[in-house]
Amino acid sequence: MTVSETSPGATTETLRRVRAAGRRQAPTGRQPVPQLPRRKLVRAFPPMALVSADEIEAIHRASLTVLAEIGMDFTLPEARDLLRAAGAKVDGERVRFDPAMVESYVGSAPAEFTLHARNPENSRRIGGANMAFGTVASPPNSSDMEGGRRSGSHADYQNFLRLAQYFNCIGFISGYPVEPIDLHASVRHLHALRDMVELTDKPFHAYSLGTERIRDGIEIARIARGISPAKLEEEPSLFTIVNTNSPLKLDTPMLRGIIEMSSRNQAVCVTPFTLAGAMAPVTVAGALVQQNAEALAGLVFTQIVRKGAPFIYGGFTSNVDMKSGAPAFGTPEYMKATIVGGQLARRYGVPFRTSNTCAANTVDAQAAYESVFSLWGVTMGGGNLVMHGAGWLEGGLVASFEKFVLDCDLIQMVMEFLQPLETTQDALGVDAIREVGPGGHFFGAGHTLARYAEAFYAPIVSDWRNNQQWLAAGKPEAWQKANAVYKQALADYEPPALDTAIRDELGDFVARRITEGGAPTDF
Amino acid sequence: MTVSETSPGATTETLRRVRAAGRRQAPTGRQPVPQLPRRKLVRAFPPMALVSADEIEAIHRASLTVLAEIGMDFTLPEARDLLRAAGAKVDGERVRFDPAMVESYVGSAPAEFTLHARNPENSRRIGGANMAFGTVASPPNSSDMEGGRRSGSHADYQNFLRLAQYFNCIGFISGYPVEPIDLHASVRHLHALRDMVELTDKPFHAYSLGTERIRDGIEIARIARGISPAKLEEEPSLFTIVNTNSPLKLDTPMLRGIIEMSSRNQAVCVTPFTLAGAMAPVTVAGALVQQNAEALAGLVFTQIVRKGAPFIYGGFTSNVDMKSGAPAFGTPEYMKATIVGGQLARRYGVPFRTSNTCAANTVDAQAAYESVFSLWGVTMGGGNLVMHGAGWLEGGLVASFEKFVLDCDLIQMVMEFLQPLETTQDALGVDAIREVGPGGHFFGAGHTLARYAEAFYAPIVSDWRNNQQWLAAGKPEAWQKANAVYKQALADYEPPALDTAIRDELGDFVARRITEGGAPTDF
Repeated sequence: MTVSETSPGATTETLRRVRAAGRRQAPTGRQPVPQLPRRKLVRAFPPMALVSADEIEAIHRASLTVLAEIGMDFTLPEARDLLRAAGAKVDGERVRFDPAMVESYVGSAPAEFTLHARNPENSRRIGGANMAFGTVASPPNSSDMEGGRRSGSHADYQNFLRLAQYFNCIGFISGYPVEPIDLHASVRHLHALRDMVELTDKPFHAYSLGTERIRDGIEIARIARGISPAKLEEEPSLFTIVNTNSPLKLDTPMLRGIIEMSSRNQAVCVTPFTLAGAMAPVTVAGALVQQNAEALAGLVFTQIVRKGAPFIYGGFTSNVDMKSGAPAFGTPEYMKATIVGGQLARRYGVPFRTSNTCAANTVDAQAAYESVFSLWGVTMGGGNLVMHGAGWLEGGLVASFEKFVLDCDLIQMVMEFLQPLETTQDALGVDAIREVGPGGHFFGAGHTLARYAEAFYAPIVSDWRNNQQWLAAGKPEAWQKANAVYKQALADYEPPALDTAIRDELGDFVARRITEGGAPTDF
Repeated sequence: MTVSETSPGATTETLRRVRAAGRRQAPTGRQPVPQLPRRKLVRAFPPMALVSADEIEAIHRASLTVLAEIGMDFTLPEARDLLRAAGAKVDGERVRFDPAMVESYVGSAPAEFTLHARNPENSRRIGGANMAFGTVASPPNSSDMEGGRRSGSHADYQNFLRLAQYFNCIGFISGYPVEPIDLHASVRHLHALRDMVELTDKPFHAYSLGTERIRDGIEIARIARGISPAKLEEEPSLFTIVNTNSPLKLDTPMLRGIIEMSSRNQAVCVTPFTLAGAMAPVTVAGALVQQNAEALAGLVFTQIVRKGAPFIYGGFTSNVDMKSGAPAFGTPEYMKATIVGGQLARRYGVPFRTSNTCAANTVDAQAAYESVFSLWGVTMGGGNLVMHGAGWLEGGLVASFEKFVLDCDLIQMVMEFLQPLETTQDALGVDAIREVGPGGHFFGAGHTLARYAEAFYAPIVSDWRNNQQWLAAGKPEAWQKANAVYKQALADYEPPALDTAIRDELGDFVARRITEGGAPTDF
């Protein structure tokens, strides 16, 4: 074959012949959405160190100084009582931590644990070299091509859950993929959590928005798995994200969430929301010091509530645009903060939570490059629990159906990247090279025929047709393909099996709690 | 500040306040294209090892087997004579290499060298931890929003050179950013190389398309730098890409290029164009074995021509879509091949050349994600010379003006990512955290005011406006912004200074060679 970068005519000719040779295998008719099988994701290579061990210690020590000298506000009296009893210095709402006290809790939380799903095949190891990607969570708006940008609804919420179930690459439900604003806030969590159990069989998140909601979440997770309260305490079966109110504040609803969850051995992920230049210092290192101080305070508090309860170190440090104050995501600063965040989490021997973010307003090139830069940081940084894996747009203000599908393609590419390279003698292919010899091609080689069907990643969205074919198809862009795929996925969606007794118990519980009025809405 | 991932209302409110706080600094009027200063790029962290040292040795040994038992076709008799004299076994066009002979040339080429530009400030170290990004090279077509996809022209060619000069992140000219098809092939290289010298002052590439063209390229590089032939032999001042004709063939024009370039100590980059499943085995490992065999044969031949001549190991292994035969780029397979390619180049102690690729038909999300996946492989794989850094679209069939600008933004983000994280006491920001305290914000902090102007990367393309502002601006997508930027860059472009004597000598040389008929076009 004649091919060369430096001889465009030859290249064009070769590509024409390559394509002609392959066209006989072109698919016809409607195909299922191509996707990878359900697969546990294990990183085969060590995560990256962006800064030295000495620099990690410098960040660690600075965080201890922040906790000792400045301290952190805990707004819930009950939490302060627990902290005081454990040796913290309490002054009004302010709590200060002696470095030795903080250090004494490092090593108490597990390095890895299993997050159990109602379908055991969907349970996930969290920590170590394991990775799991979840849905977007919490945007107040949703969008798709036809309906545009709109307030989150129960209908859109349910459709995102169906997509989360449909795509094998989605390991867990990170929260509400979009806020179902048309459900009243007092009972929203009951409807929403029941949907999670009925429409999916993957592990899920419940919000720490006060005692009642998180207790309902725990009970629904228990019912879904058909296990006893004692068994639930042995097996973490849901998780909650606790956002600190940066800088240096932990609010009452979040603290109640930790108390309810950690006391029952469920997974708590404390995630400071530290945008450098706004809620944290204008330097990445400074924002990381603050993130680390807040995360360590969270680690200590979970372990005071229950020694050994699963804790996840959450990193969410990005920057703002200093010209406009707008939050920025998927930036070089975000990548660095993510990778160093992973180094810090491993310093403390706990799993690391991170996110697939972007700031773009639409599913264009910017959305894609900010997301892949995020995933670069996430993957090389050793992220274990990847929140907002699919669907996040506009800095988290929008859940996009097209972005969801695009992100599934990106996640699958990361999954393929994480698969070890096969280097068996057969894979090294010397005999195939011998068979073909100089000047030949490999389309008909036995080695090729034996392997071609599974040889390479088959993308969901990427359009690899040549220009002529692409023009004839109406010049579709990636987001248009993603739109068609999301609708096909919804059409092909099948709800997972659910035991009738569990469905009934769940229905009874939700009905009773709704009758009781759900949860207060005055927080 | 109240902010939380888990409480969208609060998040929205915080973002509104963050934005309001920043708006007073919003820019007004026309700004120059924001870009990073000219900067040497040095990776502060070691490149990634995707496979073990044992697996690298397995690939190495398999390549030696290929070269010993199958061999490679060299179509130029003069090249075969040189190889035979050096101990290779020659049988017709086929040349076989004893493993010991190959090993004897490893270590002969320099691990690093300086590629000299006519403007010394633009000279670049090639190899080691140094990275440099070049333009796209060799597409037969160009495109932009208004003019659409069209055959390459001299006018577009010149405009791409102006962009290459304008953007500081572009370190070198990789070849013709688009083929100027309206210039006759016999004299195209003379016009095109003169343009490179007159419109830019960065290092450049000349094509190995026969003896005359590459000799003209070398002479033009010498004239441009105003140095003697002897000095040129001391200082590599241009480079050439030699594509093998995979599988296992090196053609006459390319071999002549090596002979001319290596004999004068100029930089030769041998790049097998090994698409797994088409011109190479259907496995990534097999394609790498073949890539490595061909690159090693190139290394040996350059060192036979002149021991110590600068050699660059080129990796261009990707895969084809086995359903259609279409080449695929920026895939997980491409990432893996790139990273392992870097391990192999370092095994031989030579610089590594790689590329920023994509297969997309337009500057959409696909173009962006394929490019960033490429850059991920390039950066973590320790790429030194990054070809096709800016402007490559449609698998290299199109040079896109909008993609050029988009890629400059991506390259700059990689450059920022490569900058070491500042971890001084001031950067750690404990005093700033103390000043602000729990519940405050950092907009007015002294630490912020002292640092905000240079704190974060300012993107070229990314649009971080909120939805309301973005809608009011007409919902621009990334490629529309890129279109405006490329035009502004052309309007703001200023040709670099050029000594009158050099300009005259260059003009005389080109005129004489055109009068002589240029180069033959029958290859």
